[in-house]
Amino acid sequence: MAIDEELGFVVTPWEVRGEVDYGKLIKKFGVEPLTRELLQRIERHAGYLHLYLRRGLFFAHRDLGLWLDSYEKGVKVVLYTGRGPSGRTHIGHLVPWIFTKYLQDAFKATLYFQVTDDEKFLVKQELTMDEVERYSYDNVLDVIAVGFDPERTKMFIDTKYAKTLYRIAVEVAKHVTFSTAKATFGFTESSNIGIIFFPAIQAAPCFLAQYLEGKDAHVLIPCAIDQDPYWRIARDVAPKLGFRKPAGIFSKFVPGLIQGGKMSASIPESSIFMTDTPEEAAKKVWNAFTGGQPTVKEQREKGGNPDICTVYYYFYFLFEEDDKVVEELYQRCRTGDVICGECKRKLAERVAKFLEEHQRRRERAKDLIDKFLVED
Amino acid sequence: MAIDEELGFVVTPWEVRGEVDYGKLIKKFGVEPLTRELLQRIERHAGYLHLYLRRGLFFAHRDLGLWLDSYEKGVKVVLYTGRGPSGRTHIGHLVPWIFTKYLQDAFKATLYFQVTDDEKFLVKQELTMDEVERYSYDNVLDVIAVGFDPERTKMFIDTKYAKTLYRIAVEVAKHVTFSTAKATFGFTESSNIGIIFFPAIQAAPCFLAQYLEGKDAHVLIPCAIDQDPYWRIARDVAPKLGFRKPAGIFSKFVPGLIQGGKMSASIPESSIFMTDTPEEAAKKVWNAFTGGQPTVKEQREKGGNPDICTVYYYFYFLFEEDDKVVEELYQRCRTGDVICGECKRKLAERVAKFLEEHQRRRERAKDLIDKFLVED
Repeated sequence: MAIDEELGFVVTPWEVRGEVDYGKLIKKFGVEPLTRELLQRIERHAGYLHLYLRRGLFFAHRDLGLWLDSYEKGVKVVLYTGRGPSGRTHIGHLVPWIFTKYLQDAFKATLYFQVTDDEKFLVKQELTMDEVERYSYDNVLDVIAVGFDPERTKMFIDTKYAKTLYRIAVEVAKHVTFSTAKATFGFTESSNIGIIFFPAIQAAPCFLAQYLEGKDAHVLIPCAIDQDPYWRIARDVAPKLGFRKPAGIFSKFVPGLIQGGKMSASIPESSIFMTDTPEEAAKKVWNAFTGGQPTVKEQREKGGNPDICTVYYYFYFLFEEDDKVVEELYQRCRTGDVICGECKRKLAERVAKFLEEHQRRRERAKDLIDKFLVED
Repeated sequence: MAIDEELGFVVTPWEVRGEVDYGKLIKKFGVEPLTRELLQRIERHAGYLHLYLRRGLFFAHRDLGLWLDSYEKGVKVVLYTGRGPSGRTHIGHLVPWIFTKYLQDAFKATLYFQVTDDEKFLVKQELTMDEVERYSYDNVLDVIAVGFDPERTKMFIDTKYAKTLYRIAVEVAKHVTFSTAKATFGFTESSNIGIIFFPAIQAAPCFLAQYLEGKDAHVLIPCAIDQDPYWRIARDVAPKLGFRKPAGIFSKFVPGLIQGGKMSASIPESSIFMTDTPEEAAKKVWNAFTGGQPTVKEQREKGGNPDICTVYYYFYFLFEEDDKVVEELYQRCRTGDVICGECKRKLAERVAKFLEEHQRRRERAKDLIDKFLVED
C-alpha cells in the first residue's frame, strides 16, 4: 500500500486498476487531481479531513481552488448534487451525499438537490412515470436521512419543479448544439428528443442560486466522476449567461460486492440497499468477492490479497476511520493472520449498524419531506 | 373565378398559385382537403358557415370528421391553438384565432391557447427572454381582444406553465427520436437542444384536457398549415400514450400587402399590425400590390386583374361577407369600372374600422388577463 503524495490519495488495487481508469478519466474529462494543498484548505475550514478525502475516494475536481477562493472572499457559495430515481437507494449512492453533508456543515452552504425523475423515465425504456414517481419519494427519504440541514437544503423532483428548471434550461439549451451534446454524451439518431434536451435540465440547478436570488454565487458539485460530462456542458455555457463556471469535486465508484466496477441496483445480490435488513445485508457481505485463498489452510499459509478484496475496500473507504486499524487489517490479511470469514463478520456488523441507524433516520424523514422538498 | 366543387373552396389566383403550393402541401403533409359534407356538418352545428370556410381560407384538415363524430356522440371536444410571441401581432395572426372563436362558440368547447415564448427565444438568435416576455404579454392582449369566452379559455405562456407542460412533454419526447424530429423539421447538427425538444412542448397541449381531467377528450387544432409538422409528431405519439390523435383544420396564409406569400412582421410596411393607427394602416393599404393598370386611363380601357390583387384578396377572404358584393367588385375591376384608388380607400376604411374595434377590445383586455392566463 503506497501513498501517492502528488495525487494526495492512497493507491489500492482498485486504484491500480482504478488508477488506469481514473487516470484515463482525469485526462479524458480534463479534470484535475485533488492536491494536498486543496485538502489542507478544506481541512482548515471544516476542522477535519473527511475519510473520503483522506483515503482518496474523492480524487479529482474542477475549479475547487476558485470555489474556495470565493468562500474565503465572502462570495456566496452553494452546493449541488442529486439522484436519479430508477430504483432503491444503495450504499454507493450515499457516498456523494454523505460527503456533501460534510461540505454543507463546513461551509454553511445552501444545497440544491435534484431528483432527476425525467432523466430516468427518458432513458429506461420500461419505466413508467408512476414508477419513477414512487422511486422519487422513496429515494428522497434516503437523502434526508443523511442528515442535511433542512434550513439550508432545497430538494426538488424535476417534473415537480419544472417551471423553475425549464426557464433556466431554455437559456442553457440555446447555447448547446446537437453536435456538442452528441460528442459529449454519445447521442445517436435513435436517442429520444427528451434525453437530448436533458443536459440543459441537469445544468439548470448550477445557476439556481443566481436565478432565484438575482446575485452572484459560486456552486460546487460533489458527485461521482461519471457525471462530469454534464458539468462540461454547464461550464461551457455559464459565462455566456453571465455566471461563474460550476466547480466540481468527484468521487470514484463504490464497487459492487461481487462484480466490482460500480455498485449497481440492477445486480441486487451485489448491492447493499438502504432498506435491506441486517440479515439480508449480512448474506450479501458473506458472498462478497475477497482476496482470500480457497481454503483456510492456504489462507494461513500464503496470506490473502487485500488489494483486490471488496471487503477490505469497504473497510478502507467507507467503514473504518482509524488509519492504524486499516493498516493492521491489511498486514494481518497479507500474513494470513486473519481469514475472510472474520473480516466478513466484522463488516456485516458495521453494515448492520450503519443500516439500522440510517433506517431510524429514514423513518423520521417521512415527517420532514415538506421541510426539504420545494415545488413550483 | 371558378368553384372547385371537389375541394369545396374558391379557386383564385392566390389559390392557383396557392393551389400549386397548397396542393403540394396537402400531398406532402398528408392532410385532407375540406369537403362539402364536412362544411355542412360544421354549418349545422354552428348555425352558419364562417366566411373563412365559405371562401376556402381554411382548406384542409386531419380527422375533422372524427372530431365531429366525437362531438355528436357526446365525447368532450376541445380546441387548441397558439401564438409565437416574437413581435407585434398583425392581421394575419388573427385569422386562426377569429376562426377558433367561431368554433368555440359553435361547439361550446374549452380552448387551450399556447404562447410559445420558449420556441421564439430558442429560434431567434438575437432575442432575449426579457424581450420575448414583453411580446408575450403584449400579444396576449390581441388574443383576448378576439373575444374568446373567458370561462372556456385557458391561455398559458410556456415558461410560466412549464411544470404542467414539461410533465406531458417528457412522455411525448420518449417516443420521438432525433431521427424523426430531424426528418420532420429539418434539424441539423447545429440545431440547439432546446429547439430539438420543443416539438414535445408544442405537442403537450394536445393532451392537456385528458391530463388535467383524467378522462377522454378529442382536440381540434385550428391553425395555419405551416404548423402541421408538429401535429404529425403529436398524432404519431398519441396512441402510444393512450390518447386520441389530435384533429386539425388548416388555413392558408394571409399574404403581405406588398410581398405576397405570408404576411411577416419582419416586413412592417407589408403588414397591418393590430396596434397600427388607422392612418398607418391606410398608408400601407395605399402601397399595396394590386392587379391594376399603370394609369387610370389604361385601367378604364383594359380593366384590372383581381386574381393577382392583394386588395381584392383582403376583401374576398377577410373583409367582405357579402358574396354578391365581392362578385360585383370582381366584375367591376375586370371591366375597368373601378380603379385601384377607390378599392384601396374602401379597404382602408374597413381596416380602420376593424382596428378601432380591435383596439377598443384590446384596451379592455388589460383588465381580463388574469381571467384568461393560467400559470403553474
